[in-house]
Amino acid sequence: MATAVLLLTCADRPGIVAAVAEFVLRHGGNIVHAEQHTDRGAAVFFQRVEFELDGFGLARDEIELAFAPLAERFAMQSKLMFSDTRPRLALFVSKQGHCLYDLLARWRMGELPVEVAMVISNHLDHQPAADSFSVPFHHLAVSARDPKVEHQALELIEGEGVDVVVLARYMQILSSAFVERLPHRIINIHHSFLPAFVGAHPYRQAAERGVKLIGATAHYVTSILDEGPIIDQDVVRVSHRDDVERLAQKGRDLEAIVLARAVRAHVEGRVLVYGNRTVVFS
Amino acid sequence: MATAVLLLTCADRPGIVAAVAEFVLRHGGNIVHAEQHTDRGAAVFFQRVEFELDGFGLARDEIELAFAPLAERFAMQSKLMFSDTRPRLALFVSKQGHCLYDLLARWRMGELPVEVAMVISNHLDHQPAADSFSVPFHHLAVSARDPKVEHQALELIEGEGVDVVVLARYMQILSSAFVERLPHRIINIHHSFLPAFVGAHPYRQAAERGVKLIGATAHYVTSILDEGPIIDQDVVRVSHRDDVERLAQKGRDLEAIVLARAVRAHVEGRVLVYGNRTVVFS
Amino acid sequence: MATAVLLLTCADRPGIVAAVAEFVLRHGGNIVHAEQHTDRGAAVFFQRVEFELDGFGLARDEIELAFAPLAERFAMQSKLMFSDTRPRLALFVSKQGHCLYDLLARWRMGELPVEVAMVISNHLDHQPAADSFSVPFHHLAVSARDPKVEHQALELIEGEGVDVVVLARYMQILSSAFVERLPHRIINIHHSFLPAFVGAHPYRQAAERGVKLIGATAHYVTSILDEGPIIDQDVVRVSHRDDVERLAQKGRDLEAIVLARAVRAHVEGRVLVYGNRTVVFS
Amino acid sequence: MATAVLLLTCADRPGIVAAVAEFVLRHGGNIVHAEQHTDRGAAVFFQRVEFELDGFGLARDEIELAFAPLAERFAMQSKLMFSDTRPRLALFVSKQGHCLYDLLARWRMGELPVEVAMVISNHLDHQPAADSFSVPFHHLAVSARDPKVEHQALELIEGEGVDVVVLARYMQILSSAFVERLPHRIINIHHSFLPAFVGAHPYRQAAERGVKLIGATAHYVTSILDEGPIIDQDVVRVSHRDDVERLAQKGRDLEAIVLARAVRAHVEGRVLVYGNRTVVFS
Repeated sequence: MATAVLLLTCADRPGIVAAVAEFVLRHGGNIVHAEQHTDRGAAVFFQRVEFELDGFGLARDEIELAFAPLAERFAMQSKLMFSDTRPRLALFVSKQGHCLYDLLARWRMGELPVEVAMVISNHLDHQPAADSFSVPFHHLAVSARDPKVEHQALELIEGEGVDVVVLARYMQILSSAFVERLPHRIINIHHSFLPAFVGAHPYRQAAERGVKLIGATAHYVTSILDEGPIIDQDVVRVSHRDDVERLAQKGRDLEAIVLARAVRAHVEGRVLVYGNRTVVFS
Repeated sequence: MATAVLLLTCADRPGIVAAVAEFVLRHGGNIVHAEQHTDRGAAVFFQRVEFELDGFGLARDEIELAFAPLAERFAMQSKLMFSDTRPRLALFVSKQGHCLYDLLARWRMGELPVEVAMVISNHLDHQPAADSFSVPFHHLAVSARDPKVEHQALELIEGEGVDVVVLARYMQILSSAFVERLPHRIINIHHSFLPAFVGAHPYRQAAERGVKLIGATAHYVTSILDEGPIIDQDVVRVSHRDDVERLAQKGRDLEAIVLARAVRAHVEGRVLVYGNRTVVFS
Repeated sequence: MATAVLLLTCADRPGIVAAVAEFVLRHGGNIVHAEQHTDRGAAVFFQRVEFELDGFGLARDEIELAFAPLAERFAMQSKLMFSDTRPRLALFVSKQGHCLYDLLARWRMGELPVEVAMVISNHLDHQPAADSFSVPFHHLAVSARDPKVEHQALELIEGEGVDVVVLARYMQILSSAFVERLPHRIINIHHSFLPAFVGAHPYRQAAERGVKLIGATAHYVTSILDEGPIIDQDVVRVSHRDDVERLAQKGRDLEAIVLARAVRAHVEGRVLVYGNRTVVFS
Repeated sequence: MATAVLLLTCADRPGIVAAVAEFVLRHGGNIVHAEQHTDRGAAVFFQRVEFELDGFGLARDEIELAFAPLAERFAMQSKLMFSDTRPRLALFVSKQGHCLYDLLARWRMGELPVEVAMVISNHLDHQPAADSFSVPFHHLAVSARDPKVEHQALELIEGEGVDVVVLARYMQILSSAFVERLPHRIINIHHSFLPAFVGAHPYRQAAERGVKLIGATAHYVTSILDEGPIIDQDVVRVSHRDDVERLAQKGRDLEAIVLARAVRAHVEGRVLVYGNRTVVFS
């Protein structure tokens, strides 16, 4: 059964929860899931309300208008999503294919409520993978930082109505201009437990530092490398027996899972960004 | 600043969240934290609302009365707690002292918002520990299952206004009569990942089965051994190198932490029991 | 560089390590990795020695003969493997394809040192997946317990020189006769933290018991259901918010990873079975 | 039964394992546990051999001399320990007492094979804790960096034959001179997942960065702050609901356990340092 999700954030003050609950109630909405959070220090309020569309007293395209007075009253930022509208993904990949395969397989098996609109790569290695899943593959040969290449990528993304760009081990740095066109719509997987081991070769850095756990971090891309808001992270235990190659091997499992969890949280409307942090509702 | 916590549960139906939010709002309450959950299958609603007492329009002893009509309207079970009223604990222990020490140290350092009212044991080993923390120690020598001994224990508990009994590695089985006098007020730590390895010698059972993780489970005690509602559990990785003794050693760290987390969740009013399950708000 | 792996086990007594080390040394072997273990209670010795073939004084087919006197002296069971001989796998699958996809993708990306010789299923759902990875697909329609079907499966397995059967969410129970033909060569993934939730519908059982962690267990199949030697297990935290469907979804990630880790350990010659337990060298 | 532990490290070359095994065998030693490791990149060999003293053909004070030719032949660094000789600890603490309590309780319960020789603090807060465990308490009031204070500390440490200094949340920075007097004999607990959040206020840094896991790291102290060889680390999941205070609270459990594990590994002779890394045998 299709549901609507309202993602809300505003300065905290009394009465928000009551007003939102009353809004849904008034239109006969059946709340499936609701979660709220207040950052007491920053005095910011966050809420996610999911309710059934079946039996709701407003048509899909009437909801935003009807909600507008309430949003205005609390100076809310609000976002409305429908569970049966699958966000469209562009998957960017370089040489390493494990995150690509993982996301394609999840999509194929119906594990992720998305459409994979295209695969973009600066290499040709994974064209066969895209082909075998019948996904359009675009080879943008030079560095994406090349304005021309990024322009091509943007055209593809916007031409195909892509909602989210997923950097599934894409090893090129995107320009600020590109990133700012897609605010909080580019998700990257970094192969370390950020903020440890920013930048290149995190597994080599990890081996040199002699850490006993390695990690992976999924985050929104901002114009500062590896500094965007973290959506999810996880770690796995390693030991002196693990050289760089084994660290990378163990890390790949983490990367695929953490990225998939972050993509799921994003497309299910569970993530709210504020400052450089996120609220991720469960 | 002192807060009030309302723990609510009732059959799910529209309007509960709006009504509760409106109640707090009407009396000028400042909500510090609110979380709700609906078990869609069972159609049961759960909520925890925490609000500041400072500035609230009702005195502490007026809140329940004022809330009663709302509770009645939704046929709610409600529980009201105040953050500055520290629940009183009785710690039951047998030979192994690690959970006892852990809870005493947390209490002493102000880590747990409780009062430790007494230590009860069927052995004398930990009298010095109780003494060094200036906690009354009661030696109830024979098995607690002995009605006379349980009677003494109950007299102590009720005489001292104990709110929660914590079985901190207490190796006697309590009678149904005893357990039913303190419903959802006795917390036990079982040294396995329940429902695996119910009963005696879970570490030996774990070694024999050759598991690769061992666990600990904190649960409310019911009249069926090791079957009560689970509050928290956790595991730690083990290997073929760990014999029973090393399993037990690794397990002790788990047991102390899982029990402490469960006690904290309980005394902060984060746990709601339904059927044989719990909702534990974060 | 290719290596040889010696997997050894025998009753514990003094001198084994010295004798094995001396054997490798005498033939000019360069030990890459060595690990041993003694189960003191059972008085059993286990060792894994990996040494470079390059520069070793014996040809591959001379090693077993040369080692025989030593093996005889200590009444050792020994197994010799070569790192560049890829074990051949048969993947059995029913309706759920996540473990199948995961193993196929790992194989395709060179993550697992195996050859996937065939996919066998009692359903047709995953024929396209097998096709897209160019793996022969065999549909054995009725229950595998049917002697005729199992006979066909065995013919395929033996005809194609399959070394390891992987039950990648294969929902049929194999007969004892079948299992005993492939001792410690059939790996299953069970979707619970064994020995909890043996049998059917472990996620439903988990939801009913209200556990706070769910698990997955990879084990060798024996003739007793879900009772074989455990190779690996892992868990993930869940909460009251996770209904059976969400438990299953979270569990699938675990299942794929735990199964892949177990298959890797097996094909790299890191697993020794004794009684109903395993030694898994790191 | 008492055992001897030999901790060995040298440049890797063939024959070491055979020679060490032969040495123990020749003197009738019964090996309880043996583990070795070769860092192939650095070409360094590490070994830990533990054997029973009962029945061994050499007296305790003869072992080193008898082993010397072998050590010389391979240019080994070797260290000999006896399981029944309990290392003496000095515990340094500032305001936060959770690691102190944890170590004292473990020692009292016989969980850690050590003697706690003294508690040293720059505050008076934990004098009662030391008293209640009957451990000498020394108040060294000013910053330890003050040469006079460090001099006093060293006198106490050396006067009492202290083997290991444990910084159990000691918030003063020790001078290089002090640190170099006790190489790889000072263990610190840092309340972050190093190398993330070096320096002061790691929980505040973690909250600002919006991480989804927090960590704790036990490491040997060197003259560069938070840069010494890591012995153990661990993490715990956190969320947007955890403000700095809750991060610190969750972190304290981690800190106590990670520090205790590191102290145990050290005193059981399981840790070998090379460069800025450690080998920690299981």
